[in-house]
Amino acid sequence: MSEKLDRLKEILGEVSDLQHAESVLDWDQNVNMPPGGSEARGQQLATLGKIAHEKSTSDEVGNLLEDLKSEITDSDSDDAALIRIAARDFEKAMRVPAKFVAEQAIVTSKAFETWIEAKGKSDFTIFRPHLEKVVELVREYISFFPPANHPYDTLLDDYEPGMKTAEVQTIFDNLRPKQVELIKAINSAKQVKDDFLHKKYSEKKVWDFGEAIITKFGYEWSRGRQDKAPHPFQTTFSVNDTRITNRYEVDNPLSTLYSAMHEAGHAMYEQGSNPAYERTPLAGGTSLAVHESQSRMWENLVGRSLPFCEHFFPELKKTFPSQLNGVSVKSFYKAINKVESSLIRVNSDEATYNLHVMLRLELEIGMVEGKFAVKDLPEIWNAKMNDYLGIVPPNDAQGVLQDVHWASGLMGYFSTYALGNLVSAQLWEKINEDIKDLDDQIRKGKFDTLLGWLREKVHIHARKYDPQELVQRVTGSKIDAAAYVRYLTKKYSDIYGL
Amino acid sequence: MSEKLDRLKEILGEVSDLQHAESVLDWDQNVNMPPGGSEARGQQLATLGKIAHEKSTSDEVGNLLEDLKSEITDSDSDDAALIRIAARDFEKAMRVPAKFVAEQAIVTSKAFETWIEAKGKSDFTIFRPHLEKVVELVREYISFFPPANHPYDTLLDDYEPGMKTAEVQTIFDNLRPKQVELIKAINSAKQVKDDFLHKKYSEKKVWDFGEAIITKFGYEWSRGRQDKAPHPFQTTFSVNDTRITNRYEVDNPLSTLYSAMHEAGHAMYEQGSNPAYERTPLAGGTSLAVHESQSRMWENLVGRSLPFCEHFFPELKKTFPSQLNGVSVKSFYKAINKVESSLIRVNSDEATYNLHVMLRLELEIGMVEGKFAVKDLPEIWNAKMNDYLGIVPPNDAQGVLQDVHWASGLMGYFSTYALGNLVSAQLWEKINEDIKDLDDQIRKGKFDTLLGWLREKVHIHARKYDPQELVQRVTGSKIDAAAYVRYLTKKYSDIYGL
Repeated sequence: MSEKLDRLKEILGEVSDLQHAESVLDWDQNVNMPPGGSEARGQQLATLGKIAHEKSTSDEVGNLLEDLKSEITDSDSDDAALIRIAARDFEKAMRVPAKFVAEQAIVTSKAFETWIEAKGKSDFTIFRPHLEKVVELVREYISFFPPANHPYDTLLDDYEPGMKTAEVQTIFDNLRPKQVELIKAINSAKQVKDDFLHKKYSEKKVWDFGEAIITKFGYEWSRGRQDKAPHPFQTTFSVNDTRITNRYEVDNPLSTLYSAMHEAGHAMYEQGSNPAYERTPLAGGTSLAVHESQSRMWENLVGRSLPFCEHFFPELKKTFPSQLNGVSVKSFYKAINKVESSLIRVNSDEATYNLHVMLRLELEIGMVEGKFAVKDLPEIWNAKMNDYLGIVPPNDAQGVLQDVHWASGLMGYFSTYALGNLVSAQLWEKINEDIKDLDDQIRKGKFDTLLGWLREKVHIHARKYDPQELVQRVTGSKIDAAAYVRYLTKKYSDIYGL
Repeated sequence: MSEKLDRLKEILGEVSDLQHAESVLDWDQNVNMPPGGSEARGQQLATLGKIAHEKSTSDEVGNLLEDLKSEITDSDSDDAALIRIAARDFEKAMRVPAKFVAEQAIVTSKAFETWIEAKGKSDFTIFRPHLEKVVELVREYISFFPPANHPYDTLLDDYEPGMKTAEVQTIFDNLRPKQVELIKAINSAKQVKDDFLHKKYSEKKVWDFGEAIITKFGYEWSRGRQDKAPHPFQTTFSVNDTRITNRYEVDNPLSTLYSAMHEAGHAMYEQGSNPAYERTPLAGGTSLAVHESQSRMWENLVGRSLPFCEHFFPELKKTFPSQLNGVSVKSFYKAINKVESSLIRVNSDEATYNLHVMLRLELEIGMVEGKFAVKDLPEIWNAKMNDYLGIVPPNDAQGVLQDVHWASGLMGYFSTYALGNLVSAQLWEKINEDIKDLDDQIRKGKFDTLLGWLREKVHIHARKYDPQELVQRVTGSKIDAAAYVRYLTKKYSDIYGL
């Protein structure tokens, strides 16, 4: 077994190197690349992707996995997990013809370009034929896999291994009415003041402040860096090189702080991955929801908590004395947690965010089932916005055209954002059981116990356990909305005096 | 033929993509990478290099080249050149066993580490056993190739295709006494003043000034960028993404300007490569000497000329009024052309630079021939320094240990630096025949005619013509020292009143 396993690891190590090289090229494209470089970069990424695909779907890999699967004895060992996950990756990759992958790349590249134009002109009809083609390809993709309980399961599984559409629907059906009810209660309460958040701040000082915060959190700069990019994201080149990007929005200057916390949450998850898993399929994060649980925890459960405000607000006030003149900790806390039904998902608050996600999930399922025609999406979108949030987008740019995901061919992805919120609250309850004085620690700017807990319970396992299994192991139950509802209710009852 | 050629281009296109991906990873390592990233980066580069090597030495490539070679009809066509150069690259790559390449990577990686330590402690004995191993490998490398007139020919050919050791020796034997004589004459003249070059300057202002200069030269920022790195270098990811790096030395602040001109010279050569050659072996620069002719031309024949000083010095003085207070254009011109026998090649002036190079070439040839033992190098080095420049290094760090090349396994490389100087002067004479008012244009800050000439005569051809053939086509003679001697004599006669 050991010889075959070594050979498998050798090949998968090369695949991992190729994929990390792709990540470097992609990061560079977002952070540094001069405009002229894009055509060649596309070609370079296509070649790396093609070679990685060829290497990971070779007959040799198939045969090695076949032999190794039958030889596993200790099913909880790292090697067994590696073989299991490698076999799953292999089977998925084998089902999708290279010709399809190439066609999809062309279609989504064109769709992406058109989406930018359509969004700029706020005209869905420009994007519509391209989205129709994307949906067609998504349905073709599903057809490569054995029939599932629901066709959408196939898509979801790529982002949340093992998760079923019905499970997500049950969770969301439970959550939706409670969030809608909460928002209604908030809407009838007195709105909080947040004008001081939208004054003019110094970009450099905000940027440096964000870096100071995530340094305290435990993001390791010797194994990472932060750069400016059009959109905040996190990327991994190895366990010892996990980078983040951030941006500065003039009309929402302090969002840079929260983006830093969010992306550092992703990055610390990656930095905590077991080094022994490097260059194997076990490295990295187990699913998008678990990844998002880490980013949202540092951004919201830590970053937007009262104890953390008590810790960092005095320093923030010292840094921005004129902007925050006369503002108390409590009013700052309320301001950064202001709830307001709004049109754009990425700018929405914790109370409304999940509803944006649910809307998208319902639309995706409808498209996959063929129940919703692409041409009707703007109308359906607007109706659901009215139902859930009581507002209607004045145009498609602020409605159905706002997200890049569909243009990039990403369907099955959105629900992981909301699931991540739920998991963050589940973990948070467990953490507070284990670390009794967590609030006090946060108030003192001490995060090492918290990060140590996350490292031990979540990060170190990387992809070894599937998301539901991991959440079950750590919290004692599967992914569930109850903890998040408790968290939201408590937080907003205090802020809005419900 | 066309089907086979298309297939060859397809494979070589992927090889080119892999090599450019390597360049991106290497650039990132020098410019951005956090320290933790280095181990994984080494692995990623090794994997990309291995796959590129496998792809470019496959039986399929060999067979295609064999078939295509016999089918060439028009030997001056681009396709014929592509097949010729691809076949040469293939034959070279085939001769070197993968095992040897892997061993060499390990030996030079260790040698590099040890060189840093040895240089730090200025102790050649630490480096000696590693250099002995490197020389052994270099001689083994030579043994993979058919015997040449001189064993050193094999090394030289990797950097200057087609160039022979005897040719270089003849050129240098002709040049050496003239440079030595010139330096003697300068040494007995009155030394120029340059204290104002070593005052404190603002790093940001110098950096911006350098960028303004190379913008005027014609370096296209939409297809490039400049970043800070430990050493200035130029790298190419595609004809539309050629980047440069630079540094700032507190004790020699304006060297940043000349490094910018130098690296932009390299980059403009790459930016001018025929776009039709992209993703083929014809793309890029034809040899290191021709590359260096471009960088040295912009740095020295343009950048250190009196007309250019007349153009840019007023602006420089406006930018640094206190540092350059009371300094005239002519005294600035003299200062940046100050000749002084010095120990370090990279800091040396135009009059002495080539002698540093000749010394290294003689040592390399001696080592390859087995005439010089590694243990005797410091002594030989110091004796030759005394012969050529009349100075003796006080320690090995400032002598035999100063350059990284040998530690990295690079032998056969050094002479291209001097050859590049010679070619720059040959081209310059021809350019001045073709562009009668070149000095006037430079005095007015107009560089488009010059760059246009270089694009048409040199850049566009990329690797299509070997260096000697290219120089012959453009200037009417092969690489030769006469023009450079004329250039140096005229310049320094004026500056030092010889």
